[in-house]
Amino acid sequence: MPNIGSACWAIAEGYIPSGSVSQDPALVSHETICILNAGERAAEIAITLYFEDREPVGPYRLSVGARRTRHLQFNHLDDPEPVPRDTAYASLIQSTEPIVVQHTRLDSRHPNIALLSTIAFPQG
Amino acid sequence: MPNIGSACWAIAEGYIPSGSVSQDPALVSHETICILNAGERAAEIAITLYFEDREPVGPYRLSVGARRTRHLQFNHLDDPEPVPRDTAYASLIQSTEPIVVQHTRLDSRHPNIALLSTIAFPQG
Amino acid sequence: MPNIGSACWAIAEGYIPSGSVSQDPALVSHETICILNAGERAAEIAITLYFEDREPVGPYRLSVGARRTRHLQFNHLDDPEPVPRDTAYASLIQSTEPIVVQHTRLDSRHPNIALLSTIAFPQG
Amino acid sequence: MPNIGSACWAIAEGYIPSGSVSQDPALVSHETICILNAGERAAEIAITLYFEDREPVGPYRLSVGARRTRHLQFNHLDDPEPVPRDTAYASLIQSTEPIVVQHTRLDSRHPNIALLSTIAFPQG
Repeated sequence: MPNIGSACWAIAEGYIPSGSVSQDPALVSHETICILNAGERAAEIAITLYFEDREPVGPYRLSVGARRTRHLQFNHLDDPEPVPRDTAYASLIQSTEPIVVQHTRLDSRHPNIALLSTIAFPQG
Repeated sequence: MPNIGSACWAIAEGYIPSGSVSQDPALVSHETICILNAGERAAEIAITLYFEDREPVGPYRLSVGARRTRHLQFNHLDDPEPVPRDTAYASLIQSTEPIVVQHTRLDSRHPNIALLSTIAFPQG
Repeated sequence: MPNIGSACWAIAEGYIPSGSVSQDPALVSHETICILNAGERAAEIAITLYFEDREPVGPYRLSVGARRTRHLQFNHLDDPEPVPRDTAYASLIQSTEPIVVQHTRLDSRHPNIALLSTIAFPQG
Repeated sequence: MPNIGSACWAIAEGYIPSGSVSQDPALVSHETICILNAGERAAEIAITLYFEDREPVGPYRLSVGARRTRHLQFNHLDDPEPVPRDTAYASLIQSTEPIVVQHTRLDSRHPNIALLSTIAFPQG
């Protein structure tokens, strides 16, 4: 299997609305980071969050096993601190192994849902 | 005509909701992988699916003829096994010829539809 | 000003639904290709469309002046032939000058609209 | 921390609808440019807007501090002139430091919202 991806990714967009029209967990507004580790070694990952008016927060640490994917909601991050709602942020994802990162937002503030997704930016 | 694309692509996001508000086949929730083979030779393609908590499944095999596109719904893959619903997955697409890969999701769980699309990640 | 972009781009996704809930021209289902020519010379552009079960069609020819953008609806292409509705296609965009290409779909089949957008794939 | 990104980015798509079904500022139609400066020096940024039938307008100038993100609505740009509504445009973003740029549109013309997002195109 190929060792696909990059060890450093950035997502410039980040925003979790505090409101949702649905209480269905699948339809509450959320931001998801999708990570693929297609390689043969577990990836140790550190996420740093950047804000408009204060110093970065992190690292948030997680592992993605060899030959595994992980779809992580920013809503669920809480160590070192929860991600603030209704606040613009950006994120940097650094990994000990090559990974592929994609970003998706489900927005359910209004009586319908909207989805966006984009590949993150790989460095080098 | 140029031989455009890459022989190896990854899509870190994947999720097929089991619910749809419409039974119209065009509006049932689905994930589509769009492949362009602009070259002069048929491309033999192998798709591998990655999961959060078990070993990868595949390869799913398909061909895309010379100078052809193919828009394939993950919903319709069934050999070696169907793609589970309501389950996070990622995919790796390997080809014998350079191709271009784009990923689209139509989500119709809620009484409206939402679309997302992003270019897949090309390796090398 | 920088000579930004690539002379060859591909968009693997393409699909114009025949139905729309609105007759407002701005809200009829459409696919748009957005082109930026930030350079100092006009760009002569040739678009080729690829299908699932027949030979490619084109070139569709257009110009984008120096220091200009052009947002072109695939719905409006008609020479050498109109783009078929309800049909999967892909496109290759070749230019005499470096350009940047982005792709957007407005889908208004259902009583709401959905938008998708992605950067096209640049070759070399 | 890594010096991630590029000093020159382009976004070929740009369009701010004049209509919105909501007067809630968070749900008025808007285009947002999200910038991440993960480096150790403030980035001085110049944005140039391109149109279909007249010369480019700009530069619009802004700063993004070291280790900061900024999510800027094109709706709010007004020097040297406001961004016209219902008009196709494209944008070029040049920075004194490496940055990462992502583009998001919230469209609320119709009684629902739609979101699109894509990574901008990095030069070199």
